[in-house]
Amino acid sequence: MDDESIDDLQYKNLKLIQKRKAFRFGVDAVLLANFADAKKGDRVLDIGTGTGIIPILMAGKTEANELVGIEIQPDMVEMANRSICLNGLEDRVRIFEGDITRFEDYFEASSFDVIVTNPPYIGRGSGIKNAEDKLSLARHEIACTLEDIIKAVHKLLKVNGQFAMVHRPERLVDILYLLRTYSIEPKFLRFIHPAPYKKPNLVLVKAVRGGKTQLNMLEPLYIYDGKGRYSEEINRIYCREG
Amino acid sequence: MDDESIDDLQYKNLKLIQKRKAFRFGVDAVLLANFADAKKGDRVLDIGTGTGIIPILMAGKTEANELVGIEIQPDMVEMANRSICLNGLEDRVRIFEGDITRFEDYFEASSFDVIVTNPPYIGRGSGIKNAEDKLSLARHEIACTLEDIIKAVHKLLKVNGQFAMVHRPERLVDILYLLRTYSIEPKFLRFIHPAPYKKPNLVLVKAVRGGKTQLNMLEPLYIYDGKGRYSEEINRIYCREG
Repeated sequence: MDDESIDDLQYKNLKLIQKRKAFRFGVDAVLLANFADAKKGDRVLDIGTGTGIIPILMAGKTEANELVGIEIQPDMVEMANRSICLNGLEDRVRIFEGDITRFEDYFEASSFDVIVTNPPYIGRGSGIKNAEDKLSLARHEIACTLEDIIKAVHKLLKVNGQFAMVHRPERLVDILYLLRTYSIEPKFLRFIHPAPYKKPNLVLVKAVRGGKTQLNMLEPLYIYDGKGRYSEEINRIYCREG
Repeated sequence: MDDESIDDLQYKNLKLIQKRKAFRFGVDAVLLANFADAKKGDRVLDIGTGTGIIPILMAGKTEANELVGIEIQPDMVEMANRSICLNGLEDRVRIFEGDITRFEDYFEASSFDVIVTNPPYIGRGSGIKNAEDKLSLARHEIACTLEDIIKAVHKLLKVNGQFAMVHRPERLVDILYLLRTYSIEPKFLRFIHPAPYKKPNLVLVKAVRGGKTQLNMLEPLYIYDGKGRYSEEINRIYCREG
């Protein structure tokens, strides 16, 4: 289709179909797929999967048995399923249309080992122009709020299961407060900075349902090295792995 | 006294008396004194003031009208008061012996514009050898917990007043969760790293009683520049100001 492109994910020859003018995957999705830990045989859920970028990358990077993506926009679901066929991942990755606020209609309680999400970053009440617009749905909390997602994780994740999320640092108080409120204890935080000396613009959070109180701070991840080149770690994530 | 030293604070000729073998001020106290904002005429409280380092530095750096320090160890209070005399700050700085869990005995509600604290970093139940030891009191939550402090701040700070704290990043979930629980909304976070590419080992938090939800991340502060030299900002804080 003319309004779509097929992009190389630069990892084990995986490909992704995207709309040319709609929301396209960014570094945040790639970093999250690298950050989450799925073990052999795990069942993984991606909430708001969009193009399917995260379960497709995680299918390549882990030995997870089943990767499920839920997405509210039907045309994104259709496109993500074509990406799954293109990569021959039909036996491990399944993406379907659904509304995460109605999670009980689709999933059994405590049925996932790992849940990941790259949710809309902008909270409600921050001036939305067009609630029907695909970009708005991907960026603003229109379809669901952060609390809706964390509530679903609280119900769907196994005890001691892992929740991994990428978000904006500006939402950190909301994130940590809600996670603790729903007994999903934050265990690892990693800030992503455009370069050393710059303020972070993304944060990776790993939490454990029913985990003990013990936060570990990780080294900062810099996208650029401060001299205009990609940092070594970014080069490793994008090109040299696999 | 033989077991004491008089140290130059490298700022406006301020001096500080410290025990040679007890808890001595560190970079955390200096960074907090630089981070907190006190305006002309403000009334400032430092909880667990120890040697008095923070109110003494803030007396030099701000036009605060009155700086009060509360400290549970009587010999520290006596020594801090000698530092105040040494600096001729008796008219602005007052340090007294007290237990912050009994804050209602000493202070009126909503009577401070700014509250600061460099509290013990280690939570209860983390293996304390000697609860009478001065170093233990300064480092472990023996005399009071983080929640005791935040409860006191909630009562003693004016609405829209500022709370500024330095702590370990490992306690970040506790800090942000308790601040929001007690309606002291975190507004600024700044992580302090030994050097670029190293994980942060301190965090500065600024919060506003009754403030709106809006967290701002600040640039990281590096102690060293990664080439074995102090960073420019540390040089500025320690030597070139004033």
